[in-house]
Amino acid sequence: MGNLEKKETITLREETVTGNGLIDRRAILRSALLSAGIAAAGVGAAQADDGVGADAPEWMKTPGRPFSAYGTPSKWQEKVQRIFTIAPGRAGTGVSRTPLQLLEGTITPGGLHFERHHNGVPDIDPGQHELFIHGMVKRPLAFSLDSLMRYPMETRIHFVECAGNSGAFSSPQPLQITAGELNGLLSCSEWTGVRLATLLAEAGVTKEAKWVIAEGADAAAMSRSIPLEKCMDDAMIALYQNGEAIRPEQGFPMRLLLPGFEGNMNVKWLRRLNVTDAPVDARDETSHYTELMPSGKARQFMFLQQAKSAILKPSFGMSMKGPGLYEISGLAWSGAGRISKVEVSADGGKTWALAALNQPILPKALTRFRLPWKWDGQPSTLISRATDETGGTQPTRASWIAQYAPGQGYHFNGIQSWSIEADGTVKNVYA
Amino acid sequence: MGNLEKKETITLREETVTGNGLIDRRAILRSALLSAGIAAAGVGAAQADDGVGADAPEWMKTPGRPFSAYGTPSKWQEKVQRIFTIAPGRAGTGVSRTPLQLLEGTITPGGLHFERHHNGVPDIDPGQHELFIHGMVKRPLAFSLDSLMRYPMETRIHFVECAGNSGAFSSPQPLQITAGELNGLLSCSEWTGVRLATLLAEAGVTKEAKWVIAEGADAAAMSRSIPLEKCMDDAMIALYQNGEAIRPEQGFPMRLLLPGFEGNMNVKWLRRLNVTDAPVDARDETSHYTELMPSGKARQFMFLQQAKSAILKPSFGMSMKGPGLYEISGLAWSGAGRISKVEVSADGGKTWALAALNQPILPKALTRFRLPWKWDGQPSTLISRATDETGGTQPTRASWIAQYAPGQGYHFNGIQSWSIEADGTVKNVYA
Repeated sequence: MGNLEKKETITLREETVTGNGLIDRRAILRSALLSAGIAAAGVGAAQADDGVGADAPEWMKTPGRPFSAYGTPSKWQEKVQRIFTIAPGRAGTGVSRTPLQLLEGTITPGGLHFERHHNGVPDIDPGQHELFIHGMVKRPLAFSLDSLMRYPMETRIHFVECAGNSGAFSSPQPLQITAGELNGLLSCSEWTGVRLATLLAEAGVTKEAKWVIAEGADAAAMSRSIPLEKCMDDAMIALYQNGEAIRPEQGFPMRLLLPGFEGNMNVKWLRRLNVTDAPVDARDETSHYTELMPSGKARQFMFLQQAKSAILKPSFGMSMKGPGLYEISGLAWSGAGRISKVEVSADGGKTWALAALNQPILPKALTRFRLPWKWDGQPSTLISRATDETGGTQPTRASWIAQYAPGQGYHFNGIQSWSIEADGTVKNVYA
Repeated sequence: MGNLEKKETITLREETVTGNGLIDRRAILRSALLSAGIAAAGVGAAQADDGVGADAPEWMKTPGRPFSAYGTPSKWQEKVQRIFTIAPGRAGTGVSRTPLQLLEGTITPGGLHFERHHNGVPDIDPGQHELFIHGMVKRPLAFSLDSLMRYPMETRIHFVECAGNSGAFSSPQPLQITAGELNGLLSCSEWTGVRLATLLAEAGVTKEAKWVIAEGADAAAMSRSIPLEKCMDDAMIALYQNGEAIRPEQGFPMRLLLPGFEGNMNVKWLRRLNVTDAPVDARDETSHYTELMPSGKARQFMFLQQAKSAILKPSFGMSMKGPGLYEISGLAWSGAGRISKVEVSADGGKTWALAALNQPILPKALTRFRLPWKWDGQPSTLISRATDETGGTQPTRASWIAQYAPGQGYHFNGIQSWSIEADGTVKNVYA
């Protein structure tokens, strides 16, 4: 097969800009463009018949499989699954997580969107389902799925994150678990549906109204109080997820989408919006999703998921294959708007470099960040820190922890760190 | 249940801006915002206990189903499938189409991405697969999937469209088939992978090189000649699709992605890139994907998928439910860049209104357009016409047809039309 070189390491022009091997985020493209313009000396004409690839693999010698009505991932990807634990006798209550460290880009495929159920996934007949808007409105309304389908729609990419996501960082010792186990109550989809403001305008909200009580059609009748202001802003009755009808685990046939607000408020299987002048003190806004303060009192109605980031490559469970060039890659997000920058350190926070942010940067959506890194094989500590367009950024874990009573794990957005050991293993550390 | 009004028609402030009921694209949001500010007179305090929704549906009375490792669509969506016909004895050769009229937004879920296979879907062991870059290069290279995974990546949303998409419009009479059957060799995904320019720079392309011959690892060894200029521009070795590993039907473990170029050139199951100074005259660039001209000669190497649009709602197979407010919605795209405008006519082309374009408008990606329409119940003809940022737009079908020999159906981007009959049925017409 001629003088074919098997790629083991990457050889690119490099330019170190900060401590411990971090390389300018624009270096890769510039390197490619420069090198491409250079004619290699002493290379002969094309060898169309140079023998490279002449040995056809087995799968080229037999016809492949036919068409399929609805495709599934490759059988070689069977380990790319949601991460879940079933508590005995509570099969439908709990969570499953998105395996973030096994994915790329920013969209979460429908099959891997995280789940948080309070009494399982109801099997709703979409032809029988109705959405009621009632309470402090001039005209109480009932919408069938068909009637909602006639309304003007909007399409937007937004993340949904459980308020309990990354709660494991409240553990006194860093848990040696994967990035998906740590942060996988987080997914991002292209949502399409009807703006809630359109429907509330039609119902005619009274001037005393301040809250909307949303209720799901699951067996827990999961309910939350939503400020009317959010309902009149960018709230959506989502009917589609990544182009197709919303998945059962995400609320088929419809869910409330409150971009940037904690996941629990994005009520799935939505059946009622009761317009009121006060919150209802539902189970999930009193016993859950509150922040226990050092005084012993709990802070309620902290809705916004704040600026946050996690490095996914490398991360726990992966192993570096010796010194050389690697891409550091991860996700950043904020419920307050667009990510404006992500800083990365490879020396435990002594020096920082700006990561490249994948375009387009959308508000309240996951943003992929990337930075080339030349690892010298020495122990290193990788850290990321996101800042959003409102100036919101991530506190250290220590200062985040100091705000709360011990063990309080809701709304963690502290800085996360991985240590790279000399043997290439990756560990969760509190740097 | 009180005085609950079942929604059958939509009541919004309306503002007709052009012939036959088309409404200003900004009217809906303005209407919602105006109405929301108006306190309804004579409405009492909240009726938290107004009885609305007190009759819980059956699925709220029993625990739902538990978590799943990899989710699937609702069983109620089983008709949302790829559209395919299997020619006898050619199970793995042909196409399946995306059911565009049943989807929303712009992302195509992985399971519904269109398929075009030349000898079925190969079952490739990703651990055994190699990509060779050879020919007019200084250093011929072999990449395993693992070695590619270490390279810097990019994430971009792009459509892929088969050159034969919409070929049915070359039929002398308009075919009464769905929008998906007409235009469904078109899908859009978030792709993540390695920029091809990075790999070519590493291999060191010689100055005589002008083409790259791409070959797939399917049993057809599907091959195409790609201009080197495109390979050095935005071409990508795609490894991920909508966040997860690329699906088998789209080239697992890797495909060539050439944003905006005809689908066939985006070689799936990519195994060889042979850098040369001339095209190879592969089967699929001589017997297929050429444009037969009136002279009897065929035009070769017309790579770009040009500006195009299709109205999906309403479309053939749907039925209007009487006069009233509807949303006209569809997709626009161009291989040359971003869509700059979509004009819609409801009177067969006499008057036109600008549709709202869903943000963000991305280059070489599907763009969703929308426009509210008050149908008066009279026969009407709906037309859309897209223009891209380079000024490229859609010709009439007649002028498109006039360029070619009869029956030539590749690269159709003529204007499409639906007639709405008085009884609400929708027909494909050559307006």
